[in-house]
Amino acid sequence: MIKNIAIIMGSESDLEIMQESAHLFDEFEIGYEITIVSAHRTPDRLIDFAKNAQKNGFKIIIAAAGGAAHLPGMTAANTNLPVIGVPIKTKSTDGLDSLLSIVQMPAGVPVATVAVNGAKNAAILALQILAISSPMLYNRLDNWRKTLETSVVSQAQELEESGLIKYLSAKKMAK
Amino acid sequence: MIKNIAIIMGSESDLEIMQESAHLFDEFEIGYEITIVSAHRTPDRLIDFAKNAQKNGFKIIIAAAGGAAHLPGMTAANTNLPVIGVPIKTKSTDGLDSLLSIVQMPAGVPVATVAVNGAKNAAILALQILAISSPMLYNRLDNWRKTLETSVVSQAQELEESGLIKYLSAKKMAK
Amino acid sequence: MIKNIAIIMGSESDLEIMQESAHLFDEFEIGYEITIVSAHRTPDRLIDFAKNAQKNGFKIIIAAAGGAAHLPGMTAANTNLPVIGVPIKTKSTDGLDSLLSIVQMPAGVPVATVAVNGAKNAAILALQILAISSPMLYNRLDNWRKTLETSVVSQAQELEESGLIKYLSAKKMAK
Amino acid sequence: MIKNIAIIMGSESDLEIMQESAHLFDEFEIGYEITIVSAHRTPDRLIDFAKNAQKNGFKIIIAAAGGAAHLPGMTAANTNLPVIGVPIKTKSTDGLDSLLSIVQMPAGVPVATVAVNGAKNAAILALQILAISSPMLYNRLDNWRKTLETSVVSQAQELEESGLIKYLSAKKMAK
Amino acid sequence: MIKNIAIIMGSESDLEIMQESAHLFDEFEIGYEITIVSAHRTPDRLIDFAKNAQKNGFKIIIAAAGGAAHLPGMTAANTNLPVIGVPIKTKSTDGLDSLLSIVQMPAGVPVATVAVNGAKNAAILALQILAISSPMLYNRLDNWRKTLETSVVSQAQELEESGLIKYLSAKKMAK
Amino acid sequence: MIKNIAIIMGSESDLEIMQESAHLFDEFEIGYEITIVSAHRTPDRLIDFAKNAQKNGFKIIIAAAGGAAHLPGMTAANTNLPVIGVPIKTKSTDGLDSLLSIVQMPAGVPVATVAVNGAKNAAILALQILAISSPMLYNRLDNWRKTLETSVVSQAQELEESGLIKYLSAKKMAK
Amino acid sequence: MIKNIAIIMGSESDLEIMQESAHLFDEFEIGYEITIVSAHRTPDRLIDFAKNAQKNGFKIIIAAAGGAAHLPGMTAANTNLPVIGVPIKTKSTDGLDSLLSIVQMPAGVPVATVAVNGAKNAAILALQILAISSPMLYNRLDNWRKTLETSVVSQAQELEESGLIKYLSAKKMAK
Amino acid sequence: MIKNIAIIMGSESDLEIMQESAHLFDEFEIGYEITIVSAHRTPDRLIDFAKNAQKNGFKIIIAAAGGAAHLPGMTAANTNLPVIGVPIKTKSTDGLDSLLSIVQMPAGVPVATVAVNGAKNAAILALQILAISSPMLYNRLDNWRKTLETSVVSQAQELEESGLIKYLSAKKMAK
Repeated sequence: MIKNIAIIMGSESDLEIMQESAHLFDEFEIGYEITIVSAHRTPDRLIDFAKNAQKNGFKIIIAAAGGAAHLPGMTAANTNLPVIGVPIKTKSTDGLDSLLSIVQMPAGVPVATVAVNGAKNAAILALQILAISSPMLYNRLDNWRKTLETSVVSQAQELEESGLIKYLSAKKMAK
Repeated sequence: MIKNIAIIMGSESDLEIMQESAHLFDEFEIGYEITIVSAHRTPDRLIDFAKNAQKNGFKIIIAAAGGAAHLPGMTAANTNLPVIGVPIKTKSTDGLDSLLSIVQMPAGVPVATVAVNGAKNAAILALQILAISSPMLYNRLDNWRKTLETSVVSQAQELEESGLIKYLSAKKMAK
Repeated sequence: MIKNIAIIMGSESDLEIMQESAHLFDEFEIGYEITIVSAHRTPDRLIDFAKNAQKNGFKIIIAAAGGAAHLPGMTAANTNLPVIGVPIKTKSTDGLDSLLSIVQMPAGVPVATVAVNGAKNAAILALQILAISSPMLYNRLDNWRKTLETSVVSQAQELEESGLIKYLSAKKMAK
Repeated sequence: MIKNIAIIMGSESDLEIMQESAHLFDEFEIGYEITIVSAHRTPDRLIDFAKNAQKNGFKIIIAAAGGAAHLPGMTAANTNLPVIGVPIKTKSTDGLDSLLSIVQMPAGVPVATVAVNGAKNAAILALQILAISSPMLYNRLDNWRKTLETSVVSQAQELEESGLIKYLSAKKMAK
Repeated sequence: MIKNIAIIMGSESDLEIMQESAHLFDEFEIGYEITIVSAHRTPDRLIDFAKNAQKNGFKIIIAAAGGAAHLPGMTAANTNLPVIGVPIKTKSTDGLDSLLSIVQMPAGVPVATVAVNGAKNAAILALQILAISSPMLYNRLDNWRKTLETSVVSQAQELEESGLIKYLSAKKMAK
Repeated sequence: MIKNIAIIMGSESDLEIMQESAHLFDEFEIGYEITIVSAHRTPDRLIDFAKNAQKNGFKIIIAAAGGAAHLPGMTAANTNLPVIGVPIKTKSTDGLDSLLSIVQMPAGVPVATVAVNGAKNAAILALQILAISSPMLYNRLDNWRKTLETSVVSQAQELEESGLIKYLSAKKMAK
Repeated sequence: MIKNIAIIMGSESDLEIMQESAHLFDEFEIGYEITIVSAHRTPDRLIDFAKNAQKNGFKIIIAAAGGAAHLPGMTAANTNLPVIGVPIKTKSTDGLDSLLSIVQMPAGVPVATVAVNGAKNAAILALQILAISSPMLYNRLDNWRKTLETSVVSQAQELEESGLIKYLSAKKMAK
Repeated sequence: MIKNIAIIMGSESDLEIMQESAHLFDEFEIGYEITIVSAHRTPDRLIDFAKNAQKNGFKIIIAAAGGAAHLPGMTAANTNLPVIGVPIKTKSTDGLDSLLSIVQMPAGVPVATVAVNGAKNAAILALQILAISSPMLYNRLDNWRKTLETSVVSQAQELEESGLIKYLSAKKMAK
């Protein structure tokens, strides 16, 4: 399978979140490479990765990092592939540092930032970008979203039919 | 010229920032449509626009809004085209409300968020996405970025050659 | 029972908080409908719900959501019924994103925002609004509030009579 | 004209913002009383006002304050009329203090909070509440909102027809 | 024992923190009254308490509250006794709302604010105020602070003598 | 005149705000000393001042500083006189740094913190503290506050009598 | 072993974090002294320590504190040795107070601030400073960093070779 | 003059602030190089600069940047020279993004962060580091700081001697 997507992250611990990107690509049968690249601890590896990403056949890069999160921005500084940034909430912070470090890029070098810990949305965004030139993939995304819609609607129906009390106790949410 | 890009914004006053997206597309000779669509004051127009965006030939949507900025997210909820969100800093706020309202989307519906007032970067990101399937555009982006690089380098050279004092007084920055 | 109130929320998980609105309406024997409507995952359902809410006999809508919380604002954009917004604190955030996304609405489309996780107050506010045209309900609210007052006063009396040490150990709060 | 609405504010300087509520009521020919009541400097006046508000014929209270903004919450503590709170941005703060002081009310005593400086929306919310029992007012609100919609749409048309450059120079926004 | 100090708090749950004030007054054998007074749920009780506090022999009031914390400020609005405010961190917030609601009082009505959950410091501040006219109490405070100093110094000595490793394992802090 | 109050501040530029404390003491004919003491630039002067403050006859210290504002806390660490802290908003910050640096003191060493730029309230708080042992001063404070109340009430009356439009144009606030 | 580095902290509880500085100096065989010095509870000890630090042979001071963290800044105010500040996240705060209290020093008295809880980086920074005049130490730092790099690279290789699923289950991270 | 210090900044506009570092080095007759290096627009130049900084004779690097400020951290990732980071407040932000992007570095790669816009303190910190191995420079710093102290003390004396009113009108600060 051709690997059009690279998922990189600054630390092994980010895998706990970032596997959600991978699982979605698996579901859509989109080839991807997933690896660890630290802007601060492996800067050469980062530069090497980013400068060759296009030549190596990647079309989109998803980059995740926490704290003073420089991986997405420095990747974007070394390629013109679209870079999707995922701010990771770290143990000692509430994620605002990760978010601001990724999103507030200067004019000339954008990073497409998603929500804190938004690994799943990073993958969907990547699929939407690929779908620009693939009507089939666009349709699959539309269908996938319909299942999202359906799942909300059936929860709603179940709630409406069984009534609040029964629903809450079935879900063990009753207060 | 085919218009692959739609630039929409929640209020006429956002034009002051969003013209920067347009100017960049002009520079790259990429067709775009620019208009005003308010999630709150013209919700039907928004739904109509978003649901038909793909059919109408758009490939990417840039959506800008301030405050409780719902335009990018609600556009994304009604299309599977990639939506790039631009948080606008409004008169009475520092932009944190705009940023969080746009970036913190739930799983399933991403918005590719750029910096507060990052209209230029929204356009560059759109160009990078288009360039995935256009090696020529990718090259133009690389060249464009080289001019960025060159302009920084020549500022640096001027500063190094003329010395700080002269440089500052030439730029009227001396304290 | 006529259902004058609609309680909608963006995600099933919000029920854990939002059941408090429902319990209060039960206590006051006010009819309500409670269901799940996601602005992002079921946008048509949202539009349909909001546009028909008045015709369907609702007088007030309570809308709860977390993160980039667009449900209350988009509901308000599609109806002129009063919309009460409840910002939900989500797992990965401290609720500031939910609050700002709901409260910072642009001129023309208000959302009556209550505290983060303020489901109970949303219900009380709805009752106060209904009570404008129902002196009986107004009286019941006054009485209800007197029980609040009484419960604080009896705690105070118990504390004053038994003394701090005994009170703390009875409540298992002693440090 | 019967005065169903009271607009109170903590300081004369809040009038600069709060006149917008009044102007909207004038436009809708809804009677209102507007005055200054400071929770901190005139606490008796506040208690007196709030305790008698219902008897005095008011149906809704709009209360605006800045900084440690206690006026809306303390009014709500002394009446069961719905209280709409307007956080005022003061000279030395960015409005977050006003917003949090008003919106984060404890269970039992809600304040319907609108955006920082959201005087206009406070008035619209009050009109929506009155419209629950007045189909005619509901219609007028729908019409009023349609003019909002129309004004956005005509801006959009003007922009689309005259083109960005002409539009910007007509509005003196060109960069 | 004469009760010169009143410790009031908005909710029974605040006792968990506020007992620390009481324990310190016990240690210094200073009479105090501790009770629950809610600005929002028992506003009459608050007014009554505050207006009569001086007549009732109180010299200083310590007032604690969380969220939209109006108790300290409204107490201060109804007496000219010094009011010490303790912002309580509540379950759903990080304490910033409590802090800003208490400290950002308008000119004319101060609240002497201490740290979030700073019940102990509220008591020390009260003792310092009483000590202005009691050299004996001032001396006791000086001695009390010396014990603070001594306890830090003996920790330091123990650490220096036993060495980091031993010290950490004795305290079960070793990583 | 005996000088019971010391007003110290970290920088000459703080005088712009802190003169308000002085003017209030002048109005109440309370002796005070006002001077500049920098925790960071004149640490010996600070220690010397704080350690001798009580011996030198001071009863209360008002300390103002901005940014990493250590003056109030370090003064409090060297005396058991009550220290009132005034967070100063500096050019490059919004005052949150000043506020948190002053208010978040550890257990054992309180600072009575007032609002950002709250110089006037610092003086009132000092007067309230002095008034504990001076019924005459307590009465003067009560009277002073009544003038505050009266001034609000007469603004309110003027507004109610002249009507909003006239009032706004008289105050040049009309929009 | 000569002790060139002093590690001081405001509270015994900070040892849990600050031992990481010590462990790194042990690894590099750099002598250090580690002790507790509280700016607020042992101000004389602080002044004494700071004024004599250079005479006592220290070259660099690492100072850690939480909340209204004055230890680093007050140390810096009493010596011209470089002071490295470590903001400690305390139980009742998110670390922003510690960070701002340490980093926002006025012109004239810098503190070299590292991340919240950044004890390890404080030690590395100290080593980098010592390495300016020790090529051997500089080399050891370069080697140490290469091991950092190697460890990231081998994680990456393991992940690439074993594949995501196996890697996640080996690390017990699978979702 | 040997150039031991490099001052680099991400944008020409940062010169307005960063000239203060240069002026201080001029005053101390310490050689420095000052230039522009953008992490995002000239990433190769950054890598080249950082990797060769030690070989090129630099001992300390001062790096300034705003927004998603990656320059200090990425420089630190490519050298073991101490890197001093200066967060620059940009037009559209309040500097919190710059500060967090610079200070929250992961374990292994520290940046010695100073206050927002703290260019002068960056230079003093660099001088303190150089002074570790230069008793003469240490003395000069001590003397320089004494002039700071003297200037505060003479302002204080002037204020004490002339009295507040005269002082304020001389400085044109009277309110």
